Amino acid sequence: MKIKVIVTLKKGVLDPQGKAILQTLNGMGYSNIDEIRQGKFFEISVNEDNEAKAKAQVEDMCKKLLANLVIEDYKII
Amino acid sequence: MKIKVIVTLKKGVLDPQGKAILQTLNGMGYSNIDEIRQGKFFEISVNEDNEAKAKAQVEDMCKKLLANLVIEDYKII
Repeated sequence: MKIKVIVTLKKGVLDPQGKAILQTLNGMGYSNIDEIRQGKFFEISVNEDNEAKAKAQVEDMCKKLLANLVIEDYKII
Repeated sequence: MKIKVIVTLKKGVLDPQGKAILQTLNGMGYSNIDEIRQGKFFEISVNEDNEAKAKAQVEDMCKKLLANLVIEDYKII
């Protein structure tokens, strides 16, 4: 079963990578972009048929490794 | 209007970062994970009220900057 996770920086945490992309887009002529925030995406193949169990395991992995909960949020989609 | 984009490596393209995470998870005792693929996530605030127009613009930005279409796919969500 494939579980997808998005990890994003919490609101208020500086995102220099997003800012760099924004400046580049402005330079390319896209003038109506207010902000870009970059995050990470994971697609995890779990060998488990029960969706609830697989998601619980992925949530555990997010807390322990995939996300830094001090500055990041995760969302299982 | 906020538009979200996921950029992933195409199937068959080597993902060393995903492999490194998989090995770490195995070492932490998660033995039922078959594969992890890592991608990028963007949240883009477009100053445009028309959703179709905003998405069309983001698609254009994906093709020109955010995704490398030789090795990556993008998905506007």
